[in-house]
Amino acid sequence: MPVNITALAPDHLLPVPGVSLGIAEAGIKKQHRKDVLVFKLDEGTRVAGVFTHNRFCAAPVIVAKAHLALSTVRALVVNTGNANAGTGETGLEHARTTCAALAELLDCETKQVLPFSTGVIMEPLPIDTLVNGLPAAVTDLKVDNWFDAARAIMTTDIVPKGVSRQITLNGKTVTITGIAKGSGMIRPNMATMLGFVATDANISHALLQEIVRYSANRSFNCITVDGDTSTNDAFMLMATGCAGHTEIDERNSAEFQQLRDAVTDVAVTLAQMIVRDGEGATKFITVQVDSGYNETECRLAAYAVAHSPLVKTAFFASDPNLGRILAAIGNAGIEDLDISGVELYLGDVLVAEKGARAPTYREEDGQSVMNQSEITVRIVLNRGAASSTVWTCDFSYDYVKINADYRS
Amino acid sequence: MPVNITALAPDHLLPVPGVSLGIAEAGIKKQHRKDVLVFKLDEGTRVAGVFTHNRFCAAPVIVAKAHLALSTVRALVVNTGNANAGTGETGLEHARTTCAALAELLDCETKQVLPFSTGVIMEPLPIDTLVNGLPAAVTDLKVDNWFDAARAIMTTDIVPKGVSRQITLNGKTVTITGIAKGSGMIRPNMATMLGFVATDANISHALLQEIVRYSANRSFNCITVDGDTSTNDAFMLMATGCAGHTEIDERNSAEFQQLRDAVTDVAVTLAQMIVRDGEGATKFITVQVDSGYNETECRLAAYAVAHSPLVKTAFFASDPNLGRILAAIGNAGIEDLDISGVELYLGDVLVAEKGARAPTYREEDGQSVMNQSEITVRIVLNRGAASSTVWTCDFSYDYVKINADYRS
Repeated sequence: MPVNITALAPDHLLPVPGVSLGIAEAGIKKQHRKDVLVFKLDEGTRVAGVFTHNRFCAAPVIVAKAHLALSTVRALVVNTGNANAGTGETGLEHARTTCAALAELLDCETKQVLPFSTGVIMEPLPIDTLVNGLPAAVTDLKVDNWFDAARAIMTTDIVPKGVSRQITLNGKTVTITGIAKGSGMIRPNMATMLGFVATDANISHALLQEIVRYSANRSFNCITVDGDTSTNDAFMLMATGCAGHTEIDERNSAEFQQLRDAVTDVAVTLAQMIVRDGEGATKFITVQVDSGYNETECRLAAYAVAHSPLVKTAFFASDPNLGRILAAIGNAGIEDLDISGVELYLGDVLVAEKGARAPTYREEDGQSVMNQSEITVRIVLNRGAASSTVWTCDFSYDYVKINADYRS
Repeated sequence: MPVNITALAPDHLLPVPGVSLGIAEAGIKKQHRKDVLVFKLDEGTRVAGVFTHNRFCAAPVIVAKAHLALSTVRALVVNTGNANAGTGETGLEHARTTCAALAELLDCETKQVLPFSTGVIMEPLPIDTLVNGLPAAVTDLKVDNWFDAARAIMTTDIVPKGVSRQITLNGKTVTITGIAKGSGMIRPNMATMLGFVATDANISHALLQEIVRYSANRSFNCITVDGDTSTNDAFMLMATGCAGHTEIDERNSAEFQQLRDAVTDVAVTLAQMIVRDGEGATKFITVQVDSGYNETECRLAAYAVAHSPLVKTAFFASDPNLGRILAAIGNAGIEDLDISGVELYLGDVLVAEKGARAPTYREEDGQSVMNQSEITVRIVLNRGAASSTVWTCDFSYDYVKINADYRS
């Protein structure tokens, strides 16, 4: 069950002027399930994005990157039920055909449409089924459709994921609304499974691209469920400019930083929701590494702990078998790490120092933290001023069950 | 249940002249369980070893490496029930005290004893209990004790692991017998959990060290159960010289190569036994990567597949959801990999080529390989002449169960 997520309700997600959304049941994998989502963007909307680094990246990822580089964007189309990944030349043709079909319905150019897919890998996309579902999605287009959109992009997700924030820029109210999907195959590298954030802020394309990287590096790039980087990861940020304030085009302006921080807040909330709804998750775990020599080694240590099946199963069992965390740190690939300088905290409890269990540590203190559903592991390397934080979940019977049964 | 391991019987393990073994119940963690093993080596025996690269390596690893560098070796002492890892200065004192106590009983020097431990990490070693168990182990010393020794070093292992081989060198029969333990926290880096191989061959120390590295790189360094490198890994090779042939001191001699290959055969058999008895294993999987640019990238691809929880749960479910293997290859960190050149075979079945499912692939052919208990995944990178093979197992409910319950 998802760990401490407040159930999303339709009125939690605010419309973003300039963005309308339409949903349909195309029947790509299962009947009676919303599986197509279309975003229609007002003219002048700027779009920036980051994509998976998986070398086997999906056909829609390749096409979306190419279209983004060629043109302004007027629409996005997302399908679930099939990832269109590991599908070769035919997959690329299918992604382009999808864009062309939507472009005709919306009266724009094919290169102004970005395609996204999620689902099973290495099965042919049923292109006719998808294309036949597009007219219904276009008919459904409206600005207050974000909640249904969040539900339409779910695969193994148990709960829909979305969040809205509002800020004031130059006296104008600016809205930021985002949705995301993802639950397994989660170890994003420059993005998550799929995340879409829109705002009506008015900002230059260069600064929008800067915000998408900045916020991804502090959100989707800090989470892991199982260490598997997906073929279809994408995180898109759209800015319609409809809020009516002066364009933000200065990196040093207060407005830029305000918008950047608000978008990052939305992205962090979405990324943490993905971990809280991680496949089989029963606990939400923050791994914070402090006082490292540089951020790279802090991330190495944090991910070594967050990926260790032994650490994750101990969390599932609420067993303070904390030597496994030391073993994971020792296994992080930090060549010159002096273990006698490392301190390990579970919540506020000092567990280990000087290469051994702390004299003050009592098993019942560790047990009491382990029994909680939100746990912070803090590792102090004592060799510098850098820090890094990674969010993850535990590893349960249900993870195995979900992934052993996924295609059936 | 272990995958296709022939049950070990006492007469499968041949005595090695010059090596006697003694076992005792010290009661380190549980009563009525053999938990101490002593090897006594004839004078003149040469010993070489490789050890874990985990920075949080255990106290006995540090002491064993130091003693090995200082002196010839007359004895080894192994305990289960406690890893003496993450135990700081006290742990080092305990390891030295163990060596001193055994040295006194065997009338040799402390530095001539190598200590080894396996069990829970970051709990103090009950040193008095261990030392009090040593006299009984010494009383038990005999040459035909290998089978009981294999049982005495088990922790979460279901079956004892051992193998013997004989070869003829210069007209003399030479015996090689080895035992190993390990089932979880298995992704050895220069060694396995614990492996001990002895031979009565007569070989120079330099060439013995070369054999231990050569054979480790082709055996224990090619396996993974869960990707967690232990704090206590060690693989020791002992050569007593009792077989009576002329000393092997030429790298180019036929005798050297014959002995090296026989030791490697023993090490590979032991390493594969560890995977076959991997925690929760139901399948034995060989991941073979061919036609790579160099061995490093072949190993990256092989380990990316062998470590992916999504791939491993699909094997557990016998589900030919083979796109997960493509995603893992794409995620291996081979920056310039051209996916259109990659071929994927499951057994003899061509599954994918040119970045997509092969036109000849039929789901029922993949299913029929997936239903087997021994599966070979072959990945052809088509960009060079290098190869690498990794052995692993699947990921089941029982892995989670075993590791959620380990300390109880």
